[in-house]
Amino acid sequence: MSATVSPLAPKSYAEMPAVRGVSMATAAAGIKYKNRTDVLLMVFDRPASVAGVFTRSKCPSAPVDFCRQNLSHGVARGVVVNSGNANAFTGVKGKAATELTAKSAAVALGCGENEIYLASTGVIGEPLDATKFSGVLDQMAKDATGDFWLEAAKAIMTTDTYPKVATRTAEIGGVRVTINGIAKGAGMIAPDMATMLSFVVTDADIAPHALQSLLSAGVGPSFNSVTVDSDTSTSDTLMLFATGAAAGDGQAKVESADDARLESFRAALNDLLKDLALQVVRDGEGARKMLEITVKGAQTNAAAKVIALSIANSPLVKTAVAGEDANWGRIVMAVGKAGEVADRDRLAIWFGDVRVAVNGERDPDYSEAAATAVMQGQDIPVTVDLGLGSGTATVYTCDLTKEYVAINGDYRS
Amino acid sequence: MSATVSPLAPKSYAEMPAVRGVSMATAAAGIKYKNRTDVLLMVFDRPASVAGVFTRSKCPSAPVDFCRQNLSHGVARGVVVNSGNANAFTGVKGKAATELTAKSAAVALGCGENEIYLASTGVIGEPLDATKFSGVLDQMAKDATGDFWLEAAKAIMTTDTYPKVATRTAEIGGVRVTINGIAKGAGMIAPDMATMLSFVVTDADIAPHALQSLLSAGVGPSFNSVTVDSDTSTSDTLMLFATGAAAGDGQAKVESADDARLESFRAALNDLLKDLALQVVRDGEGARKMLEITVKGAQTNAAAKVIALSIANSPLVKTAVAGEDANWGRIVMAVGKAGEVADRDRLAIWFGDVRVAVNGERDPDYSEAAATAVMQGQDIPVTVDLGLGSGTATVYTCDLTKEYVAINGDYRS
Repeated sequence: MSATVSPLAPKSYAEMPAVRGVSMATAAAGIKYKNRTDVLLMVFDRPASVAGVFTRSKCPSAPVDFCRQNLSHGVARGVVVNSGNANAFTGVKGKAATELTAKSAAVALGCGENEIYLASTGVIGEPLDATKFSGVLDQMAKDATGDFWLEAAKAIMTTDTYPKVATRTAEIGGVRVTINGIAKGAGMIAPDMATMLSFVVTDADIAPHALQSLLSAGVGPSFNSVTVDSDTSTSDTLMLFATGAAAGDGQAKVESADDARLESFRAALNDLLKDLALQVVRDGEGARKMLEITVKGAQTNAAAKVIALSIANSPLVKTAVAGEDANWGRIVMAVGKAGEVADRDRLAIWFGDVRVAVNGERDPDYSEAAATAVMQGQDIPVTVDLGLGSGTATVYTCDLTKEYVAINGDYRS
Repeated sequence: MSATVSPLAPKSYAEMPAVRGVSMATAAAGIKYKNRTDVLLMVFDRPASVAGVFTRSKCPSAPVDFCRQNLSHGVARGVVVNSGNANAFTGVKGKAATELTAKSAAVALGCGENEIYLASTGVIGEPLDATKFSGVLDQMAKDATGDFWLEAAKAIMTTDTYPKVATRTAEIGGVRVTINGIAKGAGMIAPDMATMLSFVVTDADIAPHALQSLLSAGVGPSFNSVTVDSDTSTSDTLMLFATGAAAGDGQAKVESADDARLESFRAALNDLLKDLALQVVRDGEGARKMLEITVKGAQTNAAAKVIALSIANSPLVKTAVAGEDANWGRIVMAVGKAGEVADRDRLAIWFGDVRVAVNGERDPDYSEAAATAVMQGQDIPVTVDLGLGSGTATVYTCDLTKEYVAINGDYRS
């Protein structure tokens, strides 16, 4: 938790209502931090449907392995998340730590170990002492309460400068349902590893495979469209749980993601995921500005996304933004290096509404003053039109500042 | 040209002998810089064999287009290089500027325009006023001298903090030949675009297609194995010229790259290319340390290189190095995100001779003090063994410092 809150932080936190069927507790287990909470327990009254998407890293953390293995089971009774230690690259000890944690949680909740989900974020390569959990989970299970979302978001923070929460409502077959979510950001945990964790819970009654389809589709334009520094964590985890409590109001269970009754829910979920993902970017390490990069006119949507990410991950683009420099030449460079088809002489580029380049050269009406005015804002829209087809994509990133280097270059010891 | 010379600069410049068959002149044409040279003319007494490799950018500069087009011709009489303006993303004006420059040079040298090669480095998107060349090239052709390599290297600098020169000798069929080269680095030209340019000349007598084979093979482990910030220029150019003057000493012309008489030449050329490439990295913007990253035990050499570049381009790895932090967790992260096959539980990692991780976890004998001692050095070897096969690759990069952000984040105006 940093002393200085990001200038891009939301002005206030969303009021988080309780979601029927889930309760939470936090504790300070002293895993690494002093004087703050570092463990979150989520408890589902009854087995909840569960869906998850995880890091694509070839070297995932032990908790990611554990969750992937349990996911086929389809229901969840509890979630244990800790900050301060990622339990990643910890070999057989890491696996043993997940097993011990799951066992403790299963005992505390009176359920099977395959109904427990785990996530860890923090230092990697250091063995996680799971015995620290066994002492606290019993009491946490007793203390768990529904009105605890902001505290839950705080317990999983690492170098985040603010807790990330979001809530939406939707209706399914005329029954009102709630979706709540928390996230922690791709800040770096001093001194080690960036990790994005997010947990979303709804009281809707939706079957696991339908839930997984919704989540897998929703992650594309949200969490998979944000980047802080192009570095992918070993531990990224996004999970969606459906407690089914809305069945008590007469919501008929939804078995398929294609069900037309999901229209409102899908929109609300996607909106919530994007809200949380943008909160993560806006808390990127050292961030002072946010970039919304839209590429259109590509041959395909996939090509547009590759090019948009090439721009978003370019250190030269990101340092120019930090310097409020309308340096569109670096956008051209990033388009060119992406490897996707581009025709230099059809390119057009905008900062905000100001077109700076067209037909492969500087706009004849180019105004440095107008472009610079856009760069001086906090939120900077960049649009690139390739002029080739109808493929489009939008991604989000933040600037690269000296503070990023300071945060990540500090001595570990 | 920066006021502060990189701490990684060579202690002294190589003594550059003349290479028979080539002469050079520089001039201050006032393209952008004041009080320094910004144009280089290389003149070949007789048509020289020529080979080139260029940026893979889909948005290449006008001079890159021009050179690619002339390369099929196979011989060169002159090279014009300017700094201060990259003539990139300049549309039809850019093409016209290359044509006018080539025409002026061809008149000055009494040769065809298809025997002229061009390179430009500097601001992009701004039209290059080629009339500035027509005034100077005639006089330069008259003044050209063979003993001018260091001055040639200086004229093509942008944000380089030192000129880059290298020389080697070899023998072909018992005849001694010389290879000289100059380069400018992937520093950013304030305020725009990084570009790597390098020109190598030998007096050996080698046919164009053989020369191209030598160069295309030689660029892989040298210039294509270095990275400063992962951003690919629109203008990267590496050219190799063979004047053939050694024929006067009885060197029989070599027609094929497979010719056994090229053994010594190939080794000397590869060594020179690596020397120049490392000089570029050691002058990376804001660089304080150089990283030599070796990946072994991969399934293939290509996979090893992808993983090595993933490590070399990771902002988290590079900031850790800047902070002298033996943060091997970030190496694991970069291996995991590369997308190539890796088995977390077989990974081993060394900083220098200090093994910090083995069998997927921290080395049992891990010594923070020993690892930190390596990180405090100027040149830092990193070795990763994937334990899967015999694929191997080595790449070179520099650290990511606050100065990099300062250099590239400064206002353009």
